[in-house]
Amino acid sequence: MSRIPEPVLVTAASQDCVDRDARLVLHHAAEPGDPLLCRLVARFGAPKVVSAILAGSGADLLPADDEECAADRQSLADRAHTLQTRCYRADPDTDLATAAQAGARYVIPADPEWPPALDDLGDAMPLGLWLRGELGLAAAAARGASIVGARIATGYGMHVAGELAAGLAERGWSVVSGAARGIDGAAHRGALAARGITVAVLACGIDLVYPRGHEALIGAIAADGLVVSELPPGTSVSRFRFLDRNRLIAALGRGTVVVEAAARSGSLVTARLADELGRPVLAVPGPVTSEASEGTHQLIRDGALLVTRASEVIEQLGDLGTDLAEQTPWDRFRSRRPRDCLDPIAARVLDALPPEGRAALDTVEAALAAGLEPRVVHSALGRLSVSGWVVRDERGWSACRRP
Amino acid sequence: MSRIPEPVLVTAASQDCVDRDARLVLHHAAEPGDPLLCRLVARFGAPKVVSAILAGSGADLLPADDEECAADRQSLADRAHTLQTRCYRADPDTDLATAAQAGARYVIPADPEWPPALDDLGDAMPLGLWLRGELGLAAAAARGASIVGARIATGYGMHVAGELAAGLAERGWSVVSGAARGIDGAAHRGALAARGITVAVLACGIDLVYPRGHEALIGAIAADGLVVSELPPGTSVSRFRFLDRNRLIAALGRGTVVVEAAARSGSLVTARLADELGRPVLAVPGPVTSEASEGTHQLIRDGALLVTRASEVIEQLGDLGTDLAEQTPWDRFRSRRPRDCLDPIAARVLDALPPEGRAALDTVEAALAAGLEPRVVHSALGRLSVSGWVVRDERGWSACRRP
Repeated sequence: MSRIPEPVLVTAASQDCVDRDARLVLHHAAEPGDPLLCRLVARFGAPKVVSAILAGSGADLLPADDEECAADRQSLADRAHTLQTRCYRADPDTDLATAAQAGARYVIPADPEWPPALDDLGDAMPLGLWLRGELGLAAAAARGASIVGARIATGYGMHVAGELAAGLAERGWSVVSGAARGIDGAAHRGALAARGITVAVLACGIDLVYPRGHEALIGAIAADGLVVSELPPGTSVSRFRFLDRNRLIAALGRGTVVVEAAARSGSLVTARLADELGRPVLAVPGPVTSEASEGTHQLIRDGALLVTRASEVIEQLGDLGTDLAEQTPWDRFRSRRPRDCLDPIAARVLDALPPEGRAALDTVEAALAAGLEPRVVHSALGRLSVSGWVVRDERGWSACRRP
Repeated sequence: MSRIPEPVLVTAASQDCVDRDARLVLHHAAEPGDPLLCRLVARFGAPKVVSAILAGSGADLLPADDEECAADRQSLADRAHTLQTRCYRADPDTDLATAAQAGARYVIPADPEWPPALDDLGDAMPLGLWLRGELGLAAAAARGASIVGARIATGYGMHVAGELAAGLAERGWSVVSGAARGIDGAAHRGALAARGITVAVLACGIDLVYPRGHEALIGAIAADGLVVSELPPGTSVSRFRFLDRNRLIAALGRGTVVVEAAARSGSLVTARLADELGRPVLAVPGPVTSEASEGTHQLIRDGALLVTRASEVIEQLGDLGTDLAEQTPWDRFRSRRPRDCLDPIAARVLDALPPEGRAALDTVEAALAAGLEPRVVHSALGRLSVSGWVVRDERGWSACRRP
């Protein structure tokens, strides 16, 4: 490894290679979302940046007399060796071939299917993305909700994540997650089960599978939805790549729902990133006796919105007016509950009456029992008897068992 | 009953009976928290109000020419018959005797143990209270938290209510509740089990027991804490009396914690009353799959603070500074987690290294793997090896399995 191989791309790069190839090279030069490289690419275009790095130091791109660039120049000089070596090692043709073999394509911001949502990442915007699946990413992410949570989830968390994802999918929303064990997997499966669209953002190369055991799941996501990776094919996972990946999950959804998260869960980082991107952070509560819900409860205490079902998520992430949370069956039942139609006075009189069969009360006695004026009670009894709430016998008034 | 008995108190009342006796009479004249009577008592004193009612109509108390009093005069005229009859029926001596037999005393706002907290009720302030127990009510309520919730509670809700109450009691807080089935009972029991103070506010006379089956519990509360009722001895429960009672629970605590509440639970009313009194409303979440937590989740969505343990309740209701929520065991563990002591660069380098035994990397390779400049990685490796995170062999660097 210490031997520097024959530069594969030096010719193409030195003669100002096309934007796409240059970005393929830069993917290798630095880790995802490297702010300095992103700034350079935005300012000079990928080809110029690659040429400068291969020519010795990207620092030469920046005017030496410009105070603001001093730090960037220094940093580029410090990193010259690493950047250069990694560029030399890049092999776009192999990347594209490996991706193609895995059924993946490579898209860059210039492509029509590039989702506008990713612009919000600013300096941390990806140079390009590898995609598996027939859908266009922009279309898939247009009405997307990110669902994240603990890898070590409880049966409760898995159930709720699946229900939530299915509910979103049934209403035409796509579910974005990380294809990890636990909540991620349950969310993807819930969306797939509802014949919905789901997007999995990997923390490894598009040609690899992580975690082991999710081959079938990731295959199914690629078939009905989209699998996304920002890393060159063949790149394996590592802790900091999970963090880099999480920013894409946060950016691709209109908001992020955390289902279960222990106090240290990485999904809390995703929630923070979503918040920094101006995306709503939603959290599902759970038993306070469950460590797996500690993180979501803390999020809610810190201002995240508590959500219990898909309609509440849509109400928050959807377009105003069109996406209001519908009532629960309980709400509907509530408004039809007969007793609720009674005015307060009538209800109070009814409460004061003995049930049918027991010693009935005359109007005065009922008034005394209810603490109301007889005249008032008299008219209330009239209203109640009309609607069949009370009956009168020779002894007086009593409440019907069933109106 | 329609026969009007020989007025027991007419003589005493007509000769301006003492405040205490007058209030005992007025308890019978109207239901708890009758705003009009409370206004009159506040303005003219209980004896004058009783005399006026017995003399025919309390309306004569109010100046006929005063516009503002017109409505009150009308209402008093309308209610004249009920008020008078109920006053005639009052029998303070029997009330006091019955209460004494039940081991209860009668206190009025003039008494030293009257809790200032009840002043917040304004027009709905009780005329007086019957108390069972040796503690002074003011003392018992000084650092009180109200815990309410569903009568039909789950095992989870009962467990959490008990734990919460015990945690509060252990920290010197008294637990106020309604002695009902479900959450109320669990809260009282939790406080008693922790040898703490608990206050039960009944929705029936102090000499009665509701619900059946809570005789022993209410007895235990009277023995170690306080049982409170605003209703004359012998008064049975009815729906509107529960609502009247709830305002006392809301007023006696510095704030109200709702543990479990279905969408229609009466404890949501208590929460609203607490809010109207300017008391914090706190709610404990639960599984979103549980109907018993629907009400608490709605409260949190409406702005109630989510709480998971006693220390969080105390942080909210306690005195600033002195009552901060201590860390969870997890927090303490977190800050001692060795990895957290590493700077970001060192952590990133560590992540890039293979575990001990696998093919080690030299500094340049490690730099390439971590995407950092060799010089930076070199010093990071130095720091890491000092603290035993990494080892070097003839082939290069690798990460120790256990620092």
